[in-house]
Amino acid sequence: MDFLVKFQQYSDKVEKWLQDNLQFDLNCLERTVYESMKYSLTAGGKRLRPVLSLAVCDMLNLDEEKVLPFACAIELIHTYSLIHDDLPCMDNSDFRRGKPTNHKVFGEAMAVLAGDGLLNLAFEIMLNESIKEENNSLYCARAAKLIADASGTKGMIGGQVIDIEAVGKKITYDELCQMHKKKTGALIKASILMPARLFNVPDEITESLEIYAESLGLAFQIKDDILDVEGNSQIVGKPVGTDEKNDKSTFVTLLGLNKAKALLKESTQRAADSLKNIDNSGFLTEMACWIAERNK
Amino acid sequence: MDFLVKFQQYSDKVEKWLQDNLQFDLNCLERTVYESMKYSLTAGGKRLRPVLSLAVCDMLNLDEEKVLPFACAIELIHTYSLIHDDLPCMDNSDFRRGKPTNHKVFGEAMAVLAGDGLLNLAFEIMLNESIKEENNSLYCARAAKLIADASGTKGMIGGQVIDIEAVGKKITYDELCQMHKKKTGALIKASILMPARLFNVPDEITESLEIYAESLGLAFQIKDDILDVEGNSQIVGKPVGTDEKNDKSTFVTLLGLNKAKALLKESTQRAADSLKNIDNSGFLTEMACWIAERNK
Repeated sequence: MDFLVKFQQYSDKVEKWLQDNLQFDLNCLERTVYESMKYSLTAGGKRLRPVLSLAVCDMLNLDEEKVLPFACAIELIHTYSLIHDDLPCMDNSDFRRGKPTNHKVFGEAMAVLAGDGLLNLAFEIMLNESIKEENNSLYCARAAKLIADASGTKGMIGGQVIDIEAVGKKITYDELCQMHKKKTGALIKASILMPARLFNVPDEITESLEIYAESLGLAFQIKDDILDVEGNSQIVGKPVGTDEKNDKSTFVTLLGLNKAKALLKESTQRAADSLKNIDNSGFLTEMACWIAERNK
Repeated sequence: MDFLVKFQQYSDKVEKWLQDNLQFDLNCLERTVYESMKYSLTAGGKRLRPVLSLAVCDMLNLDEEKVLPFACAIELIHTYSLIHDDLPCMDNSDFRRGKPTNHKVFGEAMAVLAGDGLLNLAFEIMLNESIKEENNSLYCARAAKLIADASGTKGMIGGQVIDIEAVGKKITYDELCQMHKKKTGALIKASILMPARLFNVPDEITESLEIYAESLGLAFQIKDDILDVEGNSQIVGKPVGTDEKNDKSTFVTLLGLNKAKALLKESTQRAADSLKNIDNSGFLTEMACWIAERNK
C-alpha cells in the first residue's frame, strides 16, 4: 500500500481515539482551558509520534487497541510542549502550523494552564489504562514510565532547557546532538519503544527499534534545520530563516548545508538498515525516507 | 505527644525522603532546571499535604514506606503549581514564603520548565513505585490516578482557571466554593485519601476521610482569606491585603469577616467530628484546629 495512504490510516485512528475519548465538558466554569487544549490538539499536527507507535504495533502484530491510549498520551505531551515552547518567555512564536499560537488566541496564562492540563491528562489516560487492564497493570506502568522519562527533565524538558540556554551562545556539535537527543529525540524514541515495552517483546527486537529510533530522531532534526534554510514558509507553516536570524546553532550552521545533507542521508540509511531482520518493516523503512524528503 | 512536635516528625520524614531520592545531577547541561526545581522545593513550605498523607497512614496503621513516595509526589505537584501560579502572566507574585518567587530568581522560561519538570517528576516517582511494587501495581496505579485527577483540569488546574478568569469580576458564593474546592481542595483531599486508595481500606473509612478532607480544605481556604485581612505580612511571608486591593472575591469579601469566621469554626468542627469513630485520630483532629488557628 502507498506510504501516504497508510500514514493517513494510522493518523485517522489517532484522530478517532482523541475525538471519542476526549470529550471536554464545555459547560463548566473552567471551559476556556478545554477550548485552549482542544485548539492546539486539533491545530493540524502530523500525529507523527502516535503514527510511529501504531506502525510498530502493526509490524510486531500487537494489540492496537491497547497501544492507542498510550500513543495518544504521547501526542498530548508533544502538544503541551509546543504550547509552552511557543510562549513569549521561551521561543516567542506567533505562528505554528500556519495558525496563531495558543497564547496568541487564549492569552499567556491560559496557554500555560492548557499545557499543564495536557501533560496531566496524558498521565490520567495512561493510569486509567493501568487500572482498566488489571492483569496487565505492571506493563502499563512500565510503558507509562518509559514515556514519563522521555518527557521529563532527563528527556524533552531537559532538551528545551539546553536549547533556551544556548540562545546567543556558540555551542559545540556534541552539545547540539545532546540537546536534540533530549528535546525531540527522546519522545520520538519513546513512541517507537512504547509498544515493545507494553507487550514485553524480546530484547533483540527492542534493540533494533532503539537504533531505528535514534537514527530517525537525528534525521528528523537535521531535516528540520535544513527546512529552516531551504523550506518554503507557506508550506512549512512557520517563518523560515529564523535560525540564522537568531544566531542559533543548528546542524546547518555548525556543519554547513552539504555536510548536514550527507549526515541526513547516513542516518536515514541507518534507520532503514536497523529493521532489515524484522518482517513487515516496510512502512517504518519508508517513514525514514519520508522524514528525510518531507517539505514541511 | 504535642501536635507541633508530631507535625515536625512527619515533615522531617518528607524532607528526608526528598533529600534521599531527589539527587539532581548538577553536572549536566540542563543543570539550571534542577537548581530551579530545588529552589522552590526547599523554599520552606509547610509540607502540609504529605504530612496529611503520613498522618492518615499512621492512623490507619498502613506501611509508611509505601505511602511516602506518593506523598512526596503530591508535594512536587503542589510546588509546581505555586511556581506557575506566581508567573507574571498569572498572579504576578514577587514573593512566596518570604523569598523571591522562582521566576524572579531563574527567569520566566526556567520557571515554566521547572514547573513542568516537577509535575512530570511526580509521575515518574509514582510510576516507579508501580513498577517496583510488582504485585501491587494496580493499587499504585489507583493511588496515582486519584492524585492525577486531583491535579488536572477536573481539579487543581481547573480551579486556577476559574480563579484567573474571575479577576475583576464579581463571582457568586457557589462559584467561589467551586473554585476553591478545585484549586486547593482537590489536592488536599487527594493527600488524605491516597493512603486509603493505595491500601484499599474499607469504604466506611474512606467515606469518613472524604468528609474530613472536604471540611479541612474549606477551613484552610477560609483561613487563608481571613489571613489576607488580619494577618501580619512578615509572618505570613507574603503581602497581605492583596485580595481587597485586587478586587478579588473571597470568603471575607462575599460573607463579611464575622460570617467567614463562623463558617471556619463550623467546618473545623465538621472535620473533627468526621473522625470520631476512627481510633488514633487525635493528630488529624488537632490538625483541623491548627489550620483554623494558624497565623501563616
